[in-house]
Amino acid sequence: MQTLRVDVELGERAYAIHIGAQLLTRAELILPQLDAPKVAIVTNTTVAPLYLQQFVQALGAHGVEAMSVVLEDGERYKDWVTLNRIYDALLAHRCDRKTTLIALGGGVVGDLTGFAAATYMRGIAFIQIPTTLLAQVDSSIGGKTGVNHPLGKNMIGAFHQPRLVLADTEVLKTLPAREFSAGMAEVIKHGLVRDAAFFFWLEQNMENLLAGDARALAHAVRRCCEIKAAVVAEDERETGVRALLNFGHTFGHGIESGMGYGNWLHGEAVAAGMVMAADLSRRLGFIAEADVERIISLLRRARLPTASPEIAPGRLLELMGSDKKAEGGKLRFVLLDAIGAASVRGDVPDAALQQTLAYSRAA
Amino acid sequence: MQTLRVDVELGERAYAIHIGAQLLTRAELILPQLDAPKVAIVTNTTVAPLYLQQFVQALGAHGVEAMSVVLEDGERYKDWVTLNRIYDALLAHRCDRKTTLIALGGGVVGDLTGFAAATYMRGIAFIQIPTTLLAQVDSSIGGKTGVNHPLGKNMIGAFHQPRLVLADTEVLKTLPAREFSAGMAEVIKHGLVRDAAFFFWLEQNMENLLAGDARALAHAVRRCCEIKAAVVAEDERETGVRALLNFGHTFGHGIESGMGYGNWLHGEAVAAGMVMAADLSRRLGFIAEADVERIISLLRRARLPTASPEIAPGRLLELMGSDKKAEGGKLRFVLLDAIGAASVRGDVPDAALQQTLAYSRAA
Repeated sequence: MQTLRVDVELGERAYAIHIGAQLLTRAELILPQLDAPKVAIVTNTTVAPLYLQQFVQALGAHGVEAMSVVLEDGERYKDWVTLNRIYDALLAHRCDRKTTLIALGGGVVGDLTGFAAATYMRGIAFIQIPTTLLAQVDSSIGGKTGVNHPLGKNMIGAFHQPRLVLADTEVLKTLPAREFSAGMAEVIKHGLVRDAAFFFWLEQNMENLLAGDARALAHAVRRCCEIKAAVVAEDERETGVRALLNFGHTFGHGIESGMGYGNWLHGEAVAAGMVMAADLSRRLGFIAEADVERIISLLRRARLPTASPEIAPGRLLELMGSDKKAEGGKLRFVLLDAIGAASVRGDVPDAALQQTLAYSRAA
Repeated sequence: MQTLRVDVELGERAYAIHIGAQLLTRAELILPQLDAPKVAIVTNTTVAPLYLQQFVQALGAHGVEAMSVVLEDGERYKDWVTLNRIYDALLAHRCDRKTTLIALGGGVVGDLTGFAAATYMRGIAFIQIPTTLLAQVDSSIGGKTGVNHPLGKNMIGAFHQPRLVLADTEVLKTLPAREFSAGMAEVIKHGLVRDAAFFFWLEQNMENLLAGDARALAHAVRRCCEIKAAVVAEDERETGVRALLNFGHTFGHGIESGMGYGNWLHGEAVAAGMVMAADLSRRLGFIAEADVERIISLLRRARLPTASPEIAPGRLLELMGSDKKAEGGKLRFVLLDAIGAASVRGDVPDAALQQTLAYSRAA
């Protein structure tokens, strides 16, 4: 299968996303991006036994010195303590400004590594090699990096674009089914907010995707990367259109935060959050009941939750309010105008919001 | 006395430095820079009793809501723990992306506040109100922010430019003499690396400056700001000429690190480091013995140390080597070509370096 390429057009910070099978050992894609033949690979205890050795060997065959930092796996480790393990390793190995960091893992590894790269010696280069579907279609692209704070997810972070993203679809074969589904939530999101045709394509191909069909998977990853790259190129720092990619995330972050990070996967919380956002869109008359049902149906086929867990509405609202998308104290929501089109709304009536919070728990 | 203004020309990140007496209560300089009438002032236990109340009142009179975070005073607090105190306060007060952080204090407060601003919710605006001479002439300008790591100073940080710098020369009256002298080391540095005429002016005016002559002080602060602004505008991220401002700092960081941060003031370590760098420049034939003597003489008149403390040469070298200015494993030095001109050199013979290390301890 051929390698697909998507370009993220960001001027001097522009970079390419390569999508295809067995990219992991194609060191020639990485070499031109290095300032010096020294890299620090950050990965986790799940990914390291599967892919670290072959990756280090592929680089070593080209004379690249590679050290590695193996983190514990899980959202709960996306914190200061783990971040400092990366800094400590970089300093212990005397990594300098020409060392390139490489994130080999899912969203947590990517966010931590990106933030370490953004802040080590005031910023060094990094490369994303996402190994989960969620990271391949979403978190590895666009330069959002960060760590969680006990009072809120991703509260501490930076925008720092990678030099390169390698999305190896082959590695998705070792991804647990639950994580694959969680990634599918973000795939569906891309269709919902920007591309009705892609949403329809997903309705026709969900079972192929779940079965791991390579061609279908490459198409879905590429389409998401194209959508995300276009949005990021238009609005790198999320002052406008990029906020649409947070569809389902205001509710979702509230759910994640209320359940304790890591108990629900991010994509699962986003799935339930998207149903709530769709329900709210319907109550305000923007979309039809049939649209909400189509969304719920597709999420169910992707084996995703479509109702929020037992969190009291008042508490959930509070958790959503401390989310950084709140501005000037007023909650803003990304709502659907149709399947394939979304807008940010700051004027949501409280009654409708309360009904959505109540509805979701009953669903 | 009139207010002087220096502009830092950085395109969309351009900002003004205002220099003058009693700027602290001139809230009208600050108001145009705020995205919302809410600020978080970060200061320390030394500065707060002197200036916090009048500053908060001046803002309050214009309807600006101001919360404050009062940190412990000292270089040893420039760490993760203190940084997290800022994040915690911002989150507890539900500060959002439109809140402006204000650093009211010296270099430590400025660096911590700037880094908090660079990383809170992936970056918010901040203003520098430096209250030490060192911060007014150097650290508040140019966007270098960060915290120390046990293995090295400023190892974790970001480039994040302030929206505005207010250098109130009046507040220098409450600065302890030792800290004033430490700031003078950076003033002398600006003359040494970029402006021979300014160095000569300092030779003629050092006693006036130490006596707190307002006109002389304003001139010195302005000239340093002009030099630094021009260098930063040319090379924001220190890939070239900006490195010259690190004159004395490679040796100096080694001294600071070896003595334990905070035991020697940064400016004191830089003073001793500049003598070592000048000595090395002389050994390599770039400047004359008489130049070194003039430098030592001026530093002494500014009541600064001109010899490094008792750190074994091998250990000092090791501490310097872990400094982030090392690239590709090879130490680079900023050396003088003359008083008023400097270059970065990566080819310093080991014998000369060893002689400088030995000389300094004997001085």
